[in-house]
Amino acid sequence: MPRILAGKPIIDALKEDGLKRVAALKDRGIDPVLAIVRIGARPDDLSYERTAIKRAEALGIGVRLFQLYEDAGQDALMKAIGEINADQGIHGCLMFRPLPAGYDEEAACEALDPRKDVDGIGRAALARVFTGRGEGFAPCTAAACLEMLDGYGIAIEGKHVVVVGRSLVIGRPVAMMLLERNATVTVCHSRTENLPAVVKAADIVVLATGRARAYDKTYFSPGQIVLDVGINMDEDGDLCGDADFDSAEGVLGDEGAITPVPRGIGGVTTSVLMKHVIEAAQRCEC
Amino acid sequence: MPRILAGKPIIDALKEDGLKRVAALKDRGIDPVLAIVRIGARPDDLSYERTAIKRAEALGIGVRLFQLYEDAGQDALMKAIGEINADQGIHGCLMFRPLPAGYDEEAACEALDPRKDVDGIGRAALARVFTGRGEGFAPCTAAACLEMLDGYGIAIEGKHVVVVGRSLVIGRPVAMMLLERNATVTVCHSRTENLPAVVKAADIVVLATGRARAYDKTYFSPGQIVLDVGINMDEDGDLCGDADFDSAEGVLGDEGAITPVPRGIGGVTTSVLMKHVIEAAQRCEC
Repeated sequence: MPRILAGKPIIDALKEDGLKRVAALKDRGIDPVLAIVRIGARPDDLSYERTAIKRAEALGIGVRLFQLYEDAGQDALMKAIGEINADQGIHGCLMFRPLPAGYDEEAACEALDPRKDVDGIGRAALARVFTGRGEGFAPCTAAACLEMLDGYGIAIEGKHVVVVGRSLVIGRPVAMMLLERNATVTVCHSRTENLPAVVKAADIVVLATGRARAYDKTYFSPGQIVLDVGINMDEDGDLCGDADFDSAEGVLGDEGAITPVPRGIGGVTTSVLMKHVIEAAQRCEC
Repeated sequence: MPRILAGKPIIDALKEDGLKRVAALKDRGIDPVLAIVRIGARPDDLSYERTAIKRAEALGIGVRLFQLYEDAGQDALMKAIGEINADQGIHGCLMFRPLPAGYDEEAACEALDPRKDVDGIGRAALARVFTGRGEGFAPCTAAACLEMLDGYGIAIEGKHVVVVGRSLVIGRPVAMMLLERNATVTVCHSRTENLPAVVKAADIVVLATGRARAYDKTYFSPGQIVLDVGINMDEDGDLCGDADFDSAEGVLGDEGAITPVPRGIGGVTTSVLMKHVIEAAQRCEC
């Protein structure tokens, strides 16, 4: 049976490191603070928010919640972002997306100060991921995939990684980050011909399509490392990944490995967010 | 034997279209102008410059040459870029790279007004290629690959494209542009394990490593489309591509195709540069 790559050891290691760095910041008189922008009250957002607040508290990171009614409108959103940019006591900002219908999400992403863009939602941050130049943070989920591989000592260099999904939140940035680490990277998507064969040929697979249990044993081969980034709700209301876990587990073999959902990459993403807030606070000259 | 994908028909089609668009611009009182920034007098740069000037003249595009001595220094270079940015009569700028030792190339690339960055050298342009958001032109060589495929009616959607090389001038941007067109894209490089097998599995191959005749028949399979972006000088001083053309030609078969070097993609790149200058002039509000 494959190794199960739980998020916990990675989360614990990031917490240990984070505690030290926050203590060092506080010694310098800096209290790291994360702003959260939430429009409306979608259950997904609320659930992530609770985790983020708990994680921040455990590290001594402050949280400032900017909560808008669903019909608050673009101007109110831009005003909130403007306040966050102007407030030297805020080091990073998480904005829940997608925004409700009627909001200009791109304008909001671009309005955020790139130095506070700890989830890599603006063009400046994404340009850095693509070019390796400039400043900015990578999207947290993409960075969480690399934390997972590094944390479990899985080599990246020279490996063939197949990324399924090409969003700007995860697929494209994780592909570029793995390329930077000398992986050979293939990006697949809904139009890919013969997807099972392409995925089967990989050493490492990143599933990031948001399709509940869509990838079963026909997609995998023995010895593969599967990072399942999907967080989906099945018909019974249970959380599940993009992989059909039980089916995949059966073919990956003793040399293979797979991240579970829940208790896999999801929680690591929140820890990476905190890491980015700490780094933003370390970089700021306040 | 494979089809030889010469640049000429593509260049001719771009010229025909360009002439019409320049005429329409002149009717509006706009004379499109390209600035060329050259430091020193490297034979490669001079050769490309001659082609660019000839191509511009044939289309009625003006050229302003900003020529600096090799030891002119960063300040002089930044001053030239500042002049280009400020001059409303200049619509696009080509800067020969790599810059000589001692120059800060990144600073120079970022200083250029993104609206005039017709060769996609700045972060803003590259961010657009990566994210599909914002404004800016793709690097000309990357765009030339797509012109070639489209011009010869070669389907991209769903095809597996293997890009060998990951530079910001060609490898990474062409990968993103092909992904945008719904290809499945693999990016390879010097650390890729078992490169011949990976390249052999492609429907379309883009060679962009600048290694003279490095890829022979062991890399190719029947029916493949090979775009050879390399422009190298062999031991005899003759131009050649990254592919070992004669060897590759032998295995691609009647269904395959390959671009020659010279008279392949190189000349199309110059035509794309002119296309971008015309588009920049069309967009400007002068």
